[in-house]
Amino acid sequence: MKFSLKRTVFMQELQTVQRAISTKTTIPILTGVKIVVTEEGITLTGSNADISIETFLSIQNESAQLQIEETGKIVLQARFFSEIVRRLPEEEFTLEVIENNQVAITSGKANFTVNGLDADNYPHLPVIESQNQMKLPVHVFTKLINETGFAVSQHESRPILTGVHFVLNDQKLLAVATDSHRLSQRIIPIEQAVENFDIVIPGKSLTELSRSLTNEEELVEISIMENQVLFKTETMYFYSRLLEGNYPDTNRLIPSSFNTEIDFYVPQLLAAIERASLLSHEGRNNIVRLSIQSDSVVLYGNSPEVGKVEESLSYEKVTGDPLEISFNPDYMKAALRAFGDMSVTVKFISAVRPFTLEPTENSLEFIQLITPVRTN
Amino acid sequence: MKFSLKRTVFMQELQTVQRAISTKTTIPILTGVKIVVTEEGITLTGSNADISIETFLSIQNESAQLQIEETGKIVLQARFFSEIVRRLPEEEFTLEVIENNQVAITSGKANFTVNGLDADNYPHLPVIESQNQMKLPVHVFTKLINETGFAVSQHESRPILTGVHFVLNDQKLLAVATDSHRLSQRIIPIEQAVENFDIVIPGKSLTELSRSLTNEEELVEISIMENQVLFKTETMYFYSRLLEGNYPDTNRLIPSSFNTEIDFYVPQLLAAIERASLLSHEGRNNIVRLSIQSDSVVLYGNSPEVGKVEESLSYEKVTGDPLEISFNPDYMKAALRAFGDMSVTVKFISAVRPFTLEPTENSLEFIQLITPVRTN
Repeated sequence: MKFSLKRTVFMQELQTVQRAISTKTTIPILTGVKIVVTEEGITLTGSNADISIETFLSIQNESAQLQIEETGKIVLQARFFSEIVRRLPEEEFTLEVIENNQVAITSGKANFTVNGLDADNYPHLPVIESQNQMKLPVHVFTKLINETGFAVSQHESRPILTGVHFVLNDQKLLAVATDSHRLSQRIIPIEQAVENFDIVIPGKSLTELSRSLTNEEELVEISIMENQVLFKTETMYFYSRLLEGNYPDTNRLIPSSFNTEIDFYVPQLLAAIERASLLSHEGRNNIVRLSIQSDSVVLYGNSPEVGKVEESLSYEKVTGDPLEISFNPDYMKAALRAFGDMSVTVKFISAVRPFTLEPTENSLEFIQLITPVRTN
Repeated sequence: MKFSLKRTVFMQELQTVQRAISTKTTIPILTGVKIVVTEEGITLTGSNADISIETFLSIQNESAQLQIEETGKIVLQARFFSEIVRRLPEEEFTLEVIENNQVAITSGKANFTVNGLDADNYPHLPVIESQNQMKLPVHVFTKLINETGFAVSQHESRPILTGVHFVLNDQKLLAVATDSHRLSQRIIPIEQAVENFDIVIPGKSLTELSRSLTNEEELVEISIMENQVLFKTETMYFYSRLLEGNYPDTNRLIPSSFNTEIDFYVPQLLAAIERASLLSHEGRNNIVRLSIQSDSVVLYGNSPEVGKVEESLSYEKVTGDPLEISFNPDYMKAALRAFGDMSVTVKFISAVRPFTLEPTENSLEFIQLITPVRTN
């Protein structure tokens, strides 16, 4: 195996697959990047137990100035290899497998000789049978991830809750995540006809995927199999395992009738919650209290050690019964950030029942639910 | 005590004194910022065991729009207080001491009540008798710090070596630091006549001071006392304690005759050392080897686990005997970074004697010394 190319172009490919490579893995070969050179170009692969990323650099990519002298394959320790490539003295470099899986890297007057591993010992990626496929614009899919992924459980006690539940049914794609204290659900229409599915994708995979999908104008093609899902763009294959087991029925958690409703402008409410949480974070119980009267809405934060805050909130509209309710401001902050710059309607039943947040307009598409904290 | 002013202006003052405030202190009142309001303006003070910073915001500073209704003083927990000020809803805020050292902070519809501490219990800053004073441009003094501070010892086993030795003598200011493996010495002329001095300032104080001196056009006035030094600018007083004890005589460490000399362009040599240190950092001994012949200079890095590098170095001139020498590349990197974009002359005696680096031009002003590693 021998090739030469532009260092900066290769660095980009390397950085993409490195997202899947962990230095903490118990399988030593997985700290490496697999390099496969054919006459068509270079394929790089990085993987950990949950996700695998593959990129392809074509011989036809002119900016790479790729010259292939000999095909072949090798695995190189990823972090170290990428440090070397980053620091090479010239813009172009040559990589050659010499003997015993040793690799010579040459650029200008610098000559590196590094130990590689036999690529035949690298685990095989799942073979995807291209059956159930769906295409989405990248910006639509990453929005869906950002609106739901934050609500997955961080605890392994119920592994199924560490993923986002995706259900395609009746030309609608539903994504929902809950950690049993809060829930976030988003529905988007799917015009193109594909087979229905019901899968749970690990939250961590989605976070990495979202970071890897940098070109918002592109389409991402999603292929689903028994226990894997593949996200494909022009330049990248991103594989994730699926979580096994039944996701709980979250539909029954979402209430349908309410006693108190308020409309807030999100950035204003978020700023007030952030101020109140300064105090609640200092105290033993991380809670803030909201007092809703027909003519005023006041938010309270309190910590016996350092002090207290009270703030009369700006709101757009209030209807229904007066209410006093306490909740974890961190859940509220995460929910509000997912809405962004818009108005939301917050709907309450009572001080002890979950309350919901929905866009004041288009409420059917996006709903978040937060369980209050009982204070007596 | 009661005043109101612009939040952003106050935040800047707060951030300056916060540099001196540690959350890890064993003296609880030192986690606080001391606020003293007189009819002239607001003085803020932050301190830890080693350094103290004081700023003054004048009633005449128009951008602050400072209104003083009542004078007084209080101590507030610094980190928490600055979080509150940062997040206040309006540009202006009011701060008032109410009772029992409680403070009301009001901005728009947000009302904070926070617990403060009695300012009478805050330690007094040293009184500086303005005797031995020297003025330097900020950019000259911060350069001096950056050229020497990195070479102080990080170990407390010889406390005196954790500081930079400053000696004024014969209208020359000498600054020198050594951790006994390497040494960095800079000399600058002092035109203004002041009394000679010989002091050792803690390296950590100088690092914080350098970060606090942001206006390069200003002058910094340095006042020295028995066991303290004060750095004074228009807006800030920065106090540091001095290290007690005798600094070793470093003059005798600097050799005066050499057998091999090479001129390098610093950025080129630095890049090569960085490449070689990639390998040496992976190995058990962090060393690189330099081989100097009359017609070639080659740098070697090696790690049995991951591989090796050899690079033929670009140099400007070589004279004297051939030499093979090994050294810690991290010392070399730090030394080269302190020179920046210029050419240096590296002078060697033998493989076991310290070697020096000096600017190829103006060599008298700045010298660095590195002890090699014996490899046999």
